[in-house]
Amino acid sequence: MDKIKVGIVGAGYIGGVHASVLARDERVRLTAVHDTIPERAQQLSRATGAEVTRTAEELLERVDAVYVTTPNTRHTELAASAARAGRHVFCEKPLATSLDGARAVLAAAGGARGVFQVGHNRRFAPVYARLRRMIREEGAAPHSAHVKMNRGELVSPEWVGDPEVTGGFLYETTIHMFDMLRFLFGEVARLDAVGSAHEYPETDDFSVLLRFESGVHASMCSSADASWLFPFERVEVFCHHRTIVTREMESLTDSSGLEGRHTTHSVHQLSKEEKWGYAQEDRAFIDSIITGAPALVTAEDGYKAVELVDACYGAVRSGEPWLGTRN
Amino acid sequence: MDKIKVGIVGAGYIGGVHASVLARDERVRLTAVHDTIPERAQQLSRATGAEVTRTAEELLERVDAVYVTTPNTRHTELAASAARAGRHVFCEKPLATSLDGARAVLAAAGGARGVFQVGHNRRFAPVYARLRRMIREEGAAPHSAHVKMNRGELVSPEWVGDPEVTGGFLYETTIHMFDMLRFLFGEVARLDAVGSAHEYPETDDFSVLLRFESGVHASMCSSADASWLFPFERVEVFCHHRTIVTREMESLTDSSGLEGRHTTHSVHQLSKEEKWGYAQEDRAFIDSIITGAPALVTAEDGYKAVELVDACYGAVRSGEPWLGTRN
Amino acid sequence: MDKIKVGIVGAGYIGGVHASVLARDERVRLTAVHDTIPERAQQLSRATGAEVTRTAEELLERVDAVYVTTPNTRHTELAASAARAGRHVFCEKPLATSLDGARAVLAAAGGARGVFQVGHNRRFAPVYARLRRMIREEGAAPHSAHVKMNRGELVSPEWVGDPEVTGGFLYETTIHMFDMLRFLFGEVARLDAVGSAHEYPETDDFSVLLRFESGVHASMCSSADASWLFPFERVEVFCHHRTIVTREMESLTDSSGLEGRHTTHSVHQLSKEEKWGYAQEDRAFIDSIITGAPALVTAEDGYKAVELVDACYGAVRSGEPWLGTRN
Amino acid sequence: MDKIKVGIVGAGYIGGVHASVLARDERVRLTAVHDTIPERAQQLSRATGAEVTRTAEELLERVDAVYVTTPNTRHTELAASAARAGRHVFCEKPLATSLDGARAVLAAAGGARGVFQVGHNRRFAPVYARLRRMIREEGAAPHSAHVKMNRGELVSPEWVGDPEVTGGFLYETTIHMFDMLRFLFGEVARLDAVGSAHEYPETDDFSVLLRFESGVHASMCSSADASWLFPFERVEVFCHHRTIVTREMESLTDSSGLEGRHTTHSVHQLSKEEKWGYAQEDRAFIDSIITGAPALVTAEDGYKAVELVDACYGAVRSGEPWLGTRN
Repeated sequence: MDKIKVGIVGAGYIGGVHASVLARDERVRLTAVHDTIPERAQQLSRATGAEVTRTAEELLERVDAVYVTTPNTRHTELAASAARAGRHVFCEKPLATSLDGARAVLAAAGGARGVFQVGHNRRFAPVYARLRRMIREEGAAPHSAHVKMNRGELVSPEWVGDPEVTGGFLYETTIHMFDMLRFLFGEVARLDAVGSAHEYPETDDFSVLLRFESGVHASMCSSADASWLFPFERVEVFCHHRTIVTREMESLTDSSGLEGRHTTHSVHQLSKEEKWGYAQEDRAFIDSIITGAPALVTAEDGYKAVELVDACYGAVRSGEPWLGTRN
Repeated sequence: MDKIKVGIVGAGYIGGVHASVLARDERVRLTAVHDTIPERAQQLSRATGAEVTRTAEELLERVDAVYVTTPNTRHTELAASAARAGRHVFCEKPLATSLDGARAVLAAAGGARGVFQVGHNRRFAPVYARLRRMIREEGAAPHSAHVKMNRGELVSPEWVGDPEVTGGFLYETTIHMFDMLRFLFGEVARLDAVGSAHEYPETDDFSVLLRFESGVHASMCSSADASWLFPFERVEVFCHHRTIVTREMESLTDSSGLEGRHTTHSVHQLSKEEKWGYAQEDRAFIDSIITGAPALVTAEDGYKAVELVDACYGAVRSGEPWLGTRN
Repeated sequence: MDKIKVGIVGAGYIGGVHASVLARDERVRLTAVHDTIPERAQQLSRATGAEVTRTAEELLERVDAVYVTTPNTRHTELAASAARAGRHVFCEKPLATSLDGARAVLAAAGGARGVFQVGHNRRFAPVYARLRRMIREEGAAPHSAHVKMNRGELVSPEWVGDPEVTGGFLYETTIHMFDMLRFLFGEVARLDAVGSAHEYPETDDFSVLLRFESGVHASMCSSADASWLFPFERVEVFCHHRTIVTREMESLTDSSGLEGRHTTHSVHQLSKEEKWGYAQEDRAFIDSIITGAPALVTAEDGYKAVELVDACYGAVRSGEPWLGTRN
Repeated sequence: MDKIKVGIVGAGYIGGVHASVLARDERVRLTAVHDTIPERAQQLSRATGAEVTRTAEELLERVDAVYVTTPNTRHTELAASAARAGRHVFCEKPLATSLDGARAVLAAAGGARGVFQVGHNRRFAPVYARLRRMIREEGAAPHSAHVKMNRGELVSPEWVGDPEVTGGFLYETTIHMFDMLRFLFGEVARLDAVGSAHEYPETDDFSVLLRFESGVHASMCSSADASWLFPFERVEVFCHHRTIVTREMESLTDSSGLEGRHTTHSVHQLSKEEKWGYAQEDRAFIDSIITGAPALVTAEDGYKAVELVDACYGAVRSGEPWLGTRN
């Protein structure tokens, strides 16, 4: 079989991560790369042998599949046009940085003939994949969750504190957790939130209260002005006489019964690409292209995560809860 | 000086803890003990040399100061009548198990000539005392907090799952944390809460969103149907590029700056009485009796904690937020 | 049945611990207490209702069983004479602070008609009891161990740095670990050691290499000039693709297989008396008195622990290994 | 300036690590690669653009500097001939897998005009570099150490259990720690060791007792048949009322004083290349080539580490201690 020709639009850190994963996949060939900053494209080209194209359009013409790994605020347009052009699209999260943008991409993806996958990598991270399995297949019956999704700062990399680039802190980091909570507990029925601004030119600190249609409820915080105290990302799930805790994508602890016993599964020895699910999500994307199986993270999933971010910003602004889409 | 004569009404576990602390205080003499279950009173009497009285009233006549350490639902009446009788009163938390009850005790304490202290021991626990000092005196400027206050079960001791005894789970355990949050961040301006019931005959699991008048906001969970995974009580405070975390009353970790450095203060070597602040609160109570200094945890504090518990139950029932007392 | 009359010789901290455990045992009555410092005896008397005797001899006449809880250097004489007097004897560790002393007590205990138990409480601590069970009954087949038994300082309590009182640091704290290693791995075949002296007027820091007759080998450290960094006492046991670790008497972690999984059993919720095995060893002692069953920690065990401490000091002095007693 | 032409002999995992670090160093160009397995060389060639040479000799002719990253048992010959050929040599640890071999390389390096650096990367790992600085420059005055250097298994990669390839377990993994202990505490004056064999066809488990000329002493274990329980590599250093602990190359904890306080420095956020010192050692090697400064890890250092491994195997075989080279 011919190798799948893949192009990357956006040659920054995460573009490099995918390039490096794809380099080990015999089924694909990285043939083209584009970035609005030519030096960055050149650099990725040198490391991979892919050709630099002058424009994103030119890249689309040369490939079967495209990774959209630009800054967040440029995803919408690129992902939509790639989908319309019939390419298989791997769009990094967030799908868009506004509800309208997300709707537009969702529409484009809906009518497209290629695979469309969104980069919510955490779903593939072994720690979270196991947690999902415990809840959805192995009978852990959660009644509530306590969730932290912090970033220490909005300083490094330098663009991370610029909402023009990220779309806002929630679109950059916290959106992962909103997707994860849907993945674990289903649709959100109601969301209350408080936010505050401090050292950065945007609202950087959120306390959130969530009710899910499943009856699960959750308390969540997400601060971008804290420190890098491990774990900065943690999900604690409470079930009948059972607590399950994930610490970042490093370990999962399951404590069942009342005897003070717990079992920890650590992925300490995996590479970061595997710990964080990058390797697995790329493999799944190529699998879908080859087998025609539906994408494991759909444009709909991407849309729903954007919706929750939007709802959170809305609740902070209005002081009123968001009541879901069924009300 | 004559020793202060102290009586204990309620000879269960916590009564025994105070008895044992007081036994080492040269300034007091434990002279009387009462319990509705005579054997329990006898047992504490044997261990302490205090005399058993037939009734609580009889005990009040023989002492200068009384510890009210009965089941929660009996605090109101005993504490109020002891205050009215002019005795110094140490009333275990909760002050009452209803807002009306709390109001009654507050009124009685207000007109009384003795010291009235409420048993919110955590304020004296070295871990929390340090956290308060960092916030109130040493310039840590928190913007938000993420708070867990779980119990693994409502099984042991056997009465803990009986709301007729405890007044409800929030009155038994979580009230400590409501008091602590006021102690740390000031008055609550708004409180949203979701609750759910599972294996126990009461609402046993809460997710709470708090706004303080100070601008601080917090996400909090409190589940009584989880497990005993350490820490089951944890406060994480987020400040500018700083995170401060307490784990139960065992340690405090301060992580400042962006270099991944943190300092932990552990009280591993202290006795439980000192770790949990029991020794210190009893000393403070006796100090106040002797010096006439105001109690460090007032009836007003006790009332406010009850008010927050009541607000939380109310918000769960109504689905509407509690808007504080200034609105 | 008449209650067993128990006396305590030595009213310091550990005497108080046993008194408090025995107070809850319906089968015994604490009737007499003695200490060379009368105030100390008075204090324990007040807390327990036991009578103070003027001499240890007088105490022996009044009791069925005696706890020898004096400073280490006085154990020998008291334990031997109590055994010869036909009393049941619970002798705190160390049995003696010299090989000759230990031999003398062993001889006295050998001919006695009462129970003779040595206070190596760690054997009863749930964490160590479980480790022993895993090794001796459940097939964990250790090939080596890495062992730390530190104390942070020789400052508090004040007598702890005085070899006239303790017999030397190894007799005070480390002897527990020598007994534990025998308990877990059997007799020692060879012991090499290096020691050094620093801030205290005795050798306070030891590195030890042990070979057991079972083929197990171990590397061990024991420093009395370090800090109180948890855990200061830790046993790591290596088996085929398996590691078992105890941290003080707080938890045991079992890590089996190569997938980075481990299970931790924590005794966080037990009282110190149970965590440390004091409650269990006292119960076992009374059991033996009543049923006639042999003591679970014999004078022979006590002797062997003293022998290892003596061997360790000898190896440090001579620079030559101790070759066990079978060579 | 012309870029330094670098070749890599041995295109396995560690060769790839260095290639990837060097790819980001503007001062060098990776021009040639050789491996006895041609496919492996081709693979590294594709990822880097370096040319594949048919023989190691051919490679030497084309480069200024060579990385010897072959299996351990082939280091000696290649490193010696590269040094004799006047090339700058970065020789992975171990320098050799026998004392004779190490002597031969040491001699070759001694007369050579190029830089000769040995790959004891841990010296550059931030965690160990900090520990060294604390000891050598900042006044931490250690008196003893407790050291663990385990591997969970000799299964993966598959050659790791073949002494024909590794030279023996101690040459593969534990040699890092022998070098580290010299780096921290100076020359070893006496080494006792016990070893045992279990599931693997070599001695895979060691308990070691070390005396340093500085007076420091250490107890050490190194097992290759355990599990992957974190941390599998740990150094605990005891000073006056102070304990310093490293956990792998992840964090360093400093606990000073008697108040139960400790500060932890975590490098959680660094890439593995920096955590493990690979990036820094490669930079240092290129620095030395350019500036003429002496290598930071010399052939002498490499020799001394081999000497300690050889001493350890000798002590296990003979049952007699190794008495250093000054006796």
